[in-house]
Amino acid sequence: MRHLALRLAAFALPATAIAAGPPPAPPADVAWDIAEGLTTEVGQRLAGTEAEARGREWAVRRLKALGFANVRIEPFTMRVWERGAESAEILSPFPQRLSLTALGGSAATPPAGIIADIVAFDGLAALEAAPDAAVRGRIVFVTHAMGPTQDGSSYGPYGNVRRNGPAIAARKGAAAILIRSIGTGPARMPHTGQTTWGGMAPIPAAALALPDADQLMRIVARGKPVRLRLLLTPHDSGERQSGNVVAEIPGRDANAGIVLIGGHLDSWDLGTGAVDDAAGLGITTAAAKAVAAKGRPLRTIRLVWFGAEEVGGFGGDAYRDRHRTEKHVLAAESDFGADRVWRFDTRVGEPDAPLVKRIADALFPLGIARGGNMAGPGTDVEPIILAANVPAIALRQDGMRYFELHHTADDTLDKIDRAQMAQNVAAWTALVDITANAREELVPPPPAPR
Amino acid sequence: MRHLALRLAAFALPATAIAAGPPPAPPADVAWDIAEGLTTEVGQRLAGTEAEARGREWAVRRLKALGFANVRIEPFTMRVWERGAESAEILSPFPQRLSLTALGGSAATPPAGIIADIVAFDGLAALEAAPDAAVRGRIVFVTHAMGPTQDGSSYGPYGNVRRNGPAIAARKGAAAILIRSIGTGPARMPHTGQTTWGGMAPIPAAALALPDADQLMRIVARGKPVRLRLLLTPHDSGERQSGNVVAEIPGRDANAGIVLIGGHLDSWDLGTGAVDDAAGLGITTAAAKAVAAKGRPLRTIRLVWFGAEEVGGFGGDAYRDRHRTEKHVLAAESDFGADRVWRFDTRVGEPDAPLVKRIADALFPLGIARGGNMAGPGTDVEPIILAANVPAIALRQDGMRYFELHHTADDTLDKIDRAQMAQNVAAWTALVDITANAREELVPPPPAPR
Repeated sequence: MRHLALRLAAFALPATAIAAGPPPAPPADVAWDIAEGLTTEVGQRLAGTEAEARGREWAVRRLKALGFANVRIEPFTMRVWERGAESAEILSPFPQRLSLTALGGSAATPPAGIIADIVAFDGLAALEAAPDAAVRGRIVFVTHAMGPTQDGSSYGPYGNVRRNGPAIAARKGAAAILIRSIGTGPARMPHTGQTTWGGMAPIPAAALALPDADQLMRIVARGKPVRLRLLLTPHDSGERQSGNVVAEIPGRDANAGIVLIGGHLDSWDLGTGAVDDAAGLGITTAAAKAVAAKGRPLRTIRLVWFGAEEVGGFGGDAYRDRHRTEKHVLAAESDFGADRVWRFDTRVGEPDAPLVKRIADALFPLGIARGGNMAGPGTDVEPIILAANVPAIALRQDGMRYFELHHTADDTLDKIDRAQMAQNVAAWTALVDITANAREELVPPPPAPR
Repeated sequence: MRHLALRLAAFALPATAIAAGPPPAPPADVAWDIAEGLTTEVGQRLAGTEAEARGREWAVRRLKALGFANVRIEPFTMRVWERGAESAEILSPFPQRLSLTALGGSAATPPAGIIADIVAFDGLAALEAAPDAAVRGRIVFVTHAMGPTQDGSSYGPYGNVRRNGPAIAARKGAAAILIRSIGTGPARMPHTGQTTWGGMAPIPAAALALPDADQLMRIVARGKPVRLRLLLTPHDSGERQSGNVVAEIPGRDANAGIVLIGGHLDSWDLGTGAVDDAAGLGITTAAAKAVAAKGRPLRTIRLVWFGAEEVGGFGGDAYRDRHRTEKHVLAAESDFGADRVWRFDTRVGEPDAPLVKRIADALFPLGIARGGNMAGPGTDVEPIILAANVPAIALRQDGMRYFELHHTADDTLDKIDRAQMAQNVAAWTALVDITANAREELVPPPPAPR
């Protein structure tokens, strides 16, 4: 890590500084200052709450102060779920408390909690295969073996335990469901995240911290019935306002299209949303500003701080609904922490075009190699990409420690490595500079079959 | 770490196995099984509570099953403090919750909490120097810069913020005190621990997780008044029973003295007390059993699982009061996690004696070098050492990550590195074997001046 930090330290300096007037803050400082300011002065920003609204006000002030044009909030409404009390204790055979947190969308228990026996499964297949009679009235517990992956690919299949497990347990008549947190770190931090019910009536659903899930498995393995008291009191706060914050660097040619970049403003409620996703806001904003500092770009750079990503991607949907007829030449988002970019993937019609080659050449000195084509672009930009068939580029960040922090109380500012964040800014600056100023455009992929 | 793990893996095998009958469990497995069993089947074991009492029953069962003789509980009573609700939120200028936990001995706030402004200090000297008028009626916040040290020596001076800070704040009329947790890790885990009031009437006192303490310092540095609501509802549970669990390997010569070893059974209430101190119980118990497996030792090996260490060292005091007239030839404890032993210190009258040299020679192949003489022996054995002038040896464990876990909810089984724990067992086995079987005795140090 030390060696890496030394190697990356060079990116903390601006690559170029040709703007007139007093020298602007180095791009890496712009990124850090946004992450520091948003997490310190706003803190957690659960979608649809007054905290997210304070975040939008903070964003408008900061983006105007940084010199962006057309800074505005594009509001939308959404249903809001909010956390209440949450606790669990084993009553027998070995009395002790467990550390857990409710999943987004969980139902509440009665105010005194529920008491039931545990039935444990080592994955969703085992839960699916169980007869309903073995599950009915019990607290289902599902564990799994997720490990860290650099590309984050383990989040898909293991994340299904959180996304789909609660609905399966509800269908089988379970009293509640506990899952091993969808995460990889050893810290005693439960990981929240949204679950989906697919029409089933919600039941209480929570994630145990990894040490607690492993503890519960050891206790279950002792072979005696395991009786648990579970208390969760989240509630539905009804329809509330969220919104996207949009800011632009207007291009010289209004017909030359839009380079769309950004991250998401909302966070889960447990931490302060530093790596998820104040970092992405800082990185993309710093890059846009660094490109602007070189002179007005050919195309408009549109920066969006999306709202309500965590709880269902509502900001990305709202952006698509409002902007689908505009000409977008690129859509890209940063939403995987602040660790270094190690690969870039494209979703374009001509992956070997000279423009792609120029991007690859600019990223290569930063330690970023070319990946594949037709890559998944990310939650917030996916709707516009699919609706308008927009070319996409994904700068893949190192995910080895991301799921130690993801959706936990531990997602705080101190987890951001400034040297790695600076490498991100350098990579995004190169990407935005080239795509906003190139004479030619990226070729869209063939439209998806309907 | 990988290299170290490979190098240490050899210690997972028993060094010798000359006992008759079916082969006993390897010593390293005995140690692990105790840590695993106690943390899983009992969990947290706050001194004086029913959980610690369950721990004593567990200990008696396990020690008898392992073949120890004279297994017994030596009870004593003590006053018990128990945690209640605990929360804090900044009301202005940047509303947000903070993660904290009450210090042992903290007073309670009213049930609705207290609301007051923060006055911040960068250490106890600054707090001491402040005029009372600057502190009166406010919530004192004291930060510090503790870093990890291999020998744990930073815990002494920085730990004073926790031990003495609350009494100083109380004397100056503060409404409450918050400290930066006495710890070194980046995880968002507040560290509890005992504070002492020195005759002052207690005030509410709590420790912020390190990210929260640093967040609060950033907010204070913005220069606006910082208003906070603090809720802590611990209570005094009155006089309760605790106790030491004692077990022996009787020696061949009842007059040859006692080799006293052990760790502490109680834990703080937030975690399951794996590294503090189920590990020390496992290590010393496994060593005693490994020595016994070689044949009956010359001297009696007395293993003590001390009660009520965390909250004031009451178990060590009770041991001294009951056993001060017996002949002890060595006292040594393991209470610094499960990471490898890297140095050994002595407290003897003849540090260059052949017996010390033989111990040094046995430890050297395990990567353990000789340190100094007159070293601090540890909380539980210190009373008997001082009262009866007992020779002491301290096997120093690597403390680089100990204060990431110490007194937090994160002190759980998964934090124990089995390879390093096995090295501890090998070192303790050598130490106990030599001192329990040597023809000569360690020479006591000159009595301390009165």
